Amino acid sequence: MTMIDKTHDPRATSWVEGADSHDQFPVQNLPFGIFKRDPSDQARVGVAIGDWILDVSALAADLHGQAKAAAQLATASTLNPLFASGNAMADALRSALFDLLTNSESRAKLTPHLYAATDCSLQLPFAIGDYTDFYTGIHHAENVGRLFRPDNPLLPNYKYVPIGYHGRASSVRPSGGTVVCPHGQRKMPDADAPIFGPSQWLDYELEMAIWLGEGNELGQPIGISDAQRHVAGLSILNDWSARDLQAWEYQPLGPFLAKNFHSTVSPWLVTSAALAPFRIAQPPRPEGDPEPLPYLFDAGDQAKGAYSVIMEVYLSTAAMRAAGHAPARLSRGEMRSMYWTVAQLVTHHAVNGCNMQTGDLLGTGTLSGPSKDSFGSLLELTEGGKTPINLPNGESRTFLQDGDEILMKASAEAEGYRSIGFGECRARIVG
Amino acid sequence: MTMIDKTHDPRATSWVEGADSHDQFPVQNLPFGIFKRDPSDQARVGVAIGDWILDVSALAADLHGQAKAAAQLATASTLNPLFASGNAMADALRSALFDLLTNSESRAKLTPHLYAATDCSLQLPFAIGDYTDFYTGIHHAENVGRLFRPDNPLLPNYKYVPIGYHGRASSVRPSGGTVVCPHGQRKMPDADAPIFGPSQWLDYELEMAIWLGEGNELGQPIGISDAQRHVAGLSILNDWSARDLQAWEYQPLGPFLAKNFHSTVSPWLVTSAALAPFRIAQPPRPEGDPEPLPYLFDAGDQAKGAYSVIMEVYLSTAAMRAAGHAPARLSRGEMRSMYWTVAQLVTHHAVNGCNMQTGDLLGTGTLSGPSKDSFGSLLELTEGGKTPINLPNGESRTFLQDGDEILMKASAEAEGYRSIGFGECRARIVG
Repeated sequence: MTMIDKTHDPRATSWVEGADSHDQFPVQNLPFGIFKRDPSDQARVGVAIGDWILDVSALAADLHGQAKAAAQLATASTLNPLFASGNAMADALRSALFDLLTNSESRAKLTPHLYAATDCSLQLPFAIGDYTDFYTGIHHAENVGRLFRPDNPLLPNYKYVPIGYHGRASSVRPSGGTVVCPHGQRKMPDADAPIFGPSQWLDYELEMAIWLGEGNELGQPIGISDAQRHVAGLSILNDWSARDLQAWEYQPLGPFLAKNFHSTVSPWLVTSAALAPFRIAQPPRPEGDPEPLPYLFDAGDQAKGAYSVIMEVYLSTAAMRAAGHAPARLSRGEMRSMYWTVAQLVTHHAVNGCNMQTGDLLGTGTLSGPSKDSFGSLLELTEGGKTPINLPNGESRTFLQDGDEILMKASAEAEGYRSIGFGECRARIVG
Repeated sequence: MTMIDKTHDPRATSWVEGADSHDQFPVQNLPFGIFKRDPSDQARVGVAIGDWILDVSALAADLHGQAKAAAQLATASTLNPLFASGNAMADALRSALFDLLTNSESRAKLTPHLYAATDCSLQLPFAIGDYTDFYTGIHHAENVGRLFRPDNPLLPNYKYVPIGYHGRASSVRPSGGTVVCPHGQRKMPDADAPIFGPSQWLDYELEMAIWLGEGNELGQPIGISDAQRHVAGLSILNDWSARDLQAWEYQPLGPFLAKNFHSTVSPWLVTSAALAPFRIAQPPRPEGDPEPLPYLFDAGDQAKGAYSVIMEVYLSTAAMRAAGHAPARLSRGEMRSMYWTVAQLVTHHAVNGCNMQTGDLLGTGTLSGPSKDSFGSLLELTEGGKTPINLPNGESRTFLQDGDEILMKASAEAEGYRSIGFGECRARIVG
């Protein structure tokens, strides 16, 4: 990707109705996803353009070379085949689709393969082999560390090790579903023994999802300068968390049932190619922080390793929806609050020889900013449940209740470029 | 399964040469696995009998009813289809194979489908969706806790919560391979900063692997009285661990790179049906320990929830092999040192609605006995690397070195029954 990539030209327009004014999916984005028109339909690859989904699998005959070969993989029910050998095929396909969608002569040919997004259901973009959740939001780590360990919020390893842990792949679901409030053990500080029941401290976590493209063989690490090409793209991730379960179970081996009951992702893969204009310098480390160890340092990565992405969380309660209230925004933060770059996460993960696979999901960890209006979880916003937040309709919350719906949105923004969005990451709590 | 199941009859004999005197795979076992005759061969389902592998996929025409339907699933390259709807199909198949292998009239028909095991390679038995490692060995938890937290070896949650964490599914490999010594960060207690390089404290962990048969839907827990029927069977598991990486990285979110570079399993699934005679009462909890919370308690499970399985670890170094020395036994322990039953692990894992899937792998955690001759890791045997163990050829070890090979074996034993084995869990360290 360079500055002159045609797909980044902010002046480019599409003949697709509404695409040019769409806040998420103008022709400069063209994210990939897996869609069905109805439940009995065969899931296949689509590309979002405005409020429409283009059925890529129907277009192989109209394409050539690598783009044609890529479209032939688009009858699959996951993006894994398209990205298994790296990003080149998907990039060629996206570039060819850009040509077709900006050239009004293609209109007649493509229109039969455009479906209204509201008529379709979106699936997970990839078959997820393994899901790893990192902890790169340093403000979040400090905020949470202060609640769990007041005298020792940031452990000594934090600024050397991109802290991460394995999560549960089976319970990742695309936006739009319901989340069953988990039951489990919790123990109040003054109680002798734990009790069992539904979580009382159900929370969301605002994260970005990093999807792996080409993998590596077991025993063969990925060098830091090579890591970015293993990234297929990004989505939004809500890593639902039961804080009461977490506090009781997490020592010594980390979070388990507090996290693995559900994770929600936005279903569109915003590709590394589409995000290229939004890559910015990794913010300098605070004075006195150690330099990354050499295996995690690359000057090119430091210069372009962060993403200019704005992330927002909205809450609507059952009462708000019944009264016609719009969802209330709880916070607005930035992806640049990551202490480590995406490339550093990939390299660290594989440095011991661990084999990454196409479709692996890496969470950034909760991305909170330095101030309260950018905190990415209720745990932080309510200071561990001590200070409720007030909603516009007079309700208040410390943690989530049945019927609450969390909506996350994100947008990549940079001067001189057309903003692109990530779609929605939305789910509702049921008891 | 009941006491009168024909496949448990210790007097049953097979016409297969050597099967009756085989210490692992007499006709009472008949474990399932995935084998290839040569690298270009199609992987498929086999059953071990003595030193032979019976090609199950070739036998569908000779079987009837559920056993025939099961054999038709045996052309798959994993056991997942065979166990996806529960254990009934595999049980019917095993029962029918028992009849063929004990009836000498079947000899001519089956002999063309028997292959010498030494001519075949064994694969992973299942496609693993998620891998979870528990921590049920209470002696191990106490021994390790004492090294990491001398004043606080067993945390307050241990006797209430079956502690577990998610591991890495992609790096699980079948017996017989090599393990690349992982590189990573380690920090000496008196150092200011960590250093990077190959692990100096590479260790094994002696565990049993629990394989999931039928899964559950997201949001729908598995009751404790229902949990055992979700267990397809057991294998041996070596959860390789880099102790120096672990000590530095593991707080606050648990082990990550210290564990995910490799895990080795024995490739034969010893089925729940074959193990039925070896189910014993869960050892009573020590005086003063709390009762399990109600969701984890079932009288039937307490009466039959443990397994009478003996487990052994052997080490051979490059020098030992060059001199023709036999592997040295490092320890001999028992599976009954689990503080929780297998059913309790399954129920706990799913109690929050987490969906288990066919082929999921649950590790028991390291199963150390109360005395040094039954400790299941070098960390424990050498008291954190402080007291080397001496090998018969004059070498000594604190942790593993290049060329060291770890072999684990296990055997289910009960009075009045023919012992059955689990095969080998073997791998060698390379630099």
